[in-house]
Amino acid sequence: MQVRPLGDRVLVKMVEEQQRTQSGIYIPDTAKDKPQTGVVVAVGDGEDVKVKEGQRVLFAKFAGTEIKIDNEEHLILSSEDILAIVE
Amino acid sequence: MQVRPLGDRVLVKMVEEQQRTQSGIYIPDTAKDKPQTGVVVAVGDGEDVKVKEGQRVLFAKFAGTEIKIDNEEHLILSSEDILAIVE
Amino acid sequence: MQVRPLGDRVLVKMVEEQQRTQSGIYIPDTAKDKPQTGVVVAVGDGEDVKVKEGQRVLFAKFAGTEIKIDNEEHLILSSEDILAIVE
Amino acid sequence: MQVRPLGDRVLVKMVEEQQRTQSGIYIPDTAKDKPQTGVVVAVGDGEDVKVKEGQRVLFAKFAGTEIKIDNEEHLILSSEDILAIVE
Amino acid sequence: MQVRPLGDRVLVKMVEEQQRTQSGIYIPDTAKDKPQTGVVVAVGDGEDVKVKEGQRVLFAKFAGTEIKIDNEEHLILSSEDILAIVE
Amino acid sequence: MQVRPLGDRVLVKMVEEQQRTQSGIYIPDTAKDKPQTGVVVAVGDGEDVKVKEGQRVLFAKFAGTEIKIDNEEHLILSSEDILAIVE
Amino acid sequence: MQVRPLGDRVLVKMVEEQQRTQSGIYIPDTAKDKPQTGVVVAVGDGEDVKVKEGQRVLFAKFAGTEIKIDNEEHLILSSEDILAIVE
Repeated sequence: MQVRPLGDRVLVKMVEEQQRTQSGIYIPDTAKDKPQTGVVVAVGDGEDVKVKEGQRVLFAKFAGTEIKIDNEEHLILSSEDILAIVE
Repeated sequence: MQVRPLGDRVLVKMVEEQQRTQSGIYIPDTAKDKPQTGVVVAVGDGEDVKVKEGQRVLFAKFAGTEIKIDNEEHLILSSEDILAIVE
Repeated sequence: MQVRPLGDRVLVKMVEEQQRTQSGIYIPDTAKDKPQTGVVVAVGDGEDVKVKEGQRVLFAKFAGTEIKIDNEEHLILSSEDILAIVE
Repeated sequence: MQVRPLGDRVLVKMVEEQQRTQSGIYIPDTAKDKPQTGVVVAVGDGEDVKVKEGQRVLFAKFAGTEIKIDNEEHLILSSEDILAIVE
Repeated sequence: MQVRPLGDRVLVKMVEEQQRTQSGIYIPDTAKDKPQTGVVVAVGDGEDVKVKEGQRVLFAKFAGTEIKIDNEEHLILSSEDILAIVE
Repeated sequence: MQVRPLGDRVLVKMVEEQQRTQSGIYIPDTAKDKPQTGVVVAVGDGEDVKVKEGQRVLFAKFAGTEIKIDNEEHLILSSEDILAIVE
Repeated sequence: MQVRPLGDRVLVKMVEEQQRTQSGIYIPDTAKDKPQTGVVVAVGDGEDVKVKEGQRVLFAKFAGTEIKIDNEEHLILSSEDILAIVE
């Protein structure tokens, strides 16, 4: 089964908290809009999509719509809610 | 009797909860904007319509207007409220 | 006496509840934005008007402005508030 | 003394309640946005003005700004707040 | 000292209540957005400015920013808040 | 040290209350959006900037962001929040 | 590890309070939208980005999303939230 995002939407697989800490990024708990990271799994064909499959991305916490695919947490985000690529 | 959506609107027949689980997508109950899936029954002729009849689609829960046709639950959605195609 | 809608507005004569049920469309009472149906009586000359006189249309409940013409309930709607044509 | 509306604004002289009933239009008291009718007295030179002096028009109740000219109630409305022409 | 409005702004000198009544315009006290009149003193060079110095204008009450120049009440208004010219 | 405003922003040095009164402009205390005056110190290179260094300007009170430079009160304003030039 | 901002976003490393005071800029505690300064670390490739790496910038306090990189406080800001360059 495959979820194909439409337009400028991007499907992101959530990254575990532990993984985030190892990479050196730490998200303060008190921040109002806590960013989070994930890995891009699929992208729509919209012009505003600037990320590719496999890239690790940073996004604001309350952005997007949560879905579980094969029991793993994913998020469908608008491209504009992706803040940065983490390399 | 037939319902013909206007412009960028799409008519979707709701999919039963059980069907959703079998496909591997699980929608968390605590998610604020729970997505749901349905099957496209008819589309308007607007430019922004990116889906076709018969496709299974994922959309945010509170989007669209509910109607019952021949006692089955349907939704008329704007194309922009359809997040992804499920294959 | 005649009411001529301006621009993209449409004049719709409300359809009785009974008539709706016969056609197979049933509007759930609990739906937040209950759609309703009516018959187009007159249309403005705006570009966005996609319906014609005599067509039966579906629209969201709280859209438009109610008026009574010759004691019959009518609604003046913006074209964008008409969701679908019912055939 | 003369009031010349600017741009897309229209000056309307309010029509008495009795006159409205005679014409066959009846405005329900419970309607949230009760429409009202009046006669166009002067129009601005804006492109969006679709009505002419002397025409009877229907508009939503809380639209526009009330003024009294020579002790008669008038309303200055934006053209977009005029719903229909009554003939 | 001179106040030169910028862009589409207009400087208006407030007209005394008595003057307004003499001209035949009367502003109802109960009106939610009471219009008022004044005389244009200076205009910006914006394209949307449709009034000239010396013209008497009608505007909605809570529009603009009040200033006193040489102890006289003035208002700096956006052109779009001027409803009509009073002649 | 120098603060260079970006785009259509303007850096204004606040003018003392006493100075304002001498110029003949008086700002009523009860006005909801009390205008204030200042002297333009630096401007961005945006197209909408219509003021120059050294000009005295009038702006709405709650506009902009306050900063102190060398212990003197300044404001960074968007050009559109500057109402008029005072000469 | 590197964070690459997308589009018109800018990554800024926060500047210590002490550093700010030495530069002559003082931010009043009572100001509703306290500006802050930081040093640009990375910029997106969007057209609206007007700042370069290494520049010290002034921005409104509640703008952007906080992240910690290698235990140092950073902010991802939209370009439009950067008010001025401090030289």
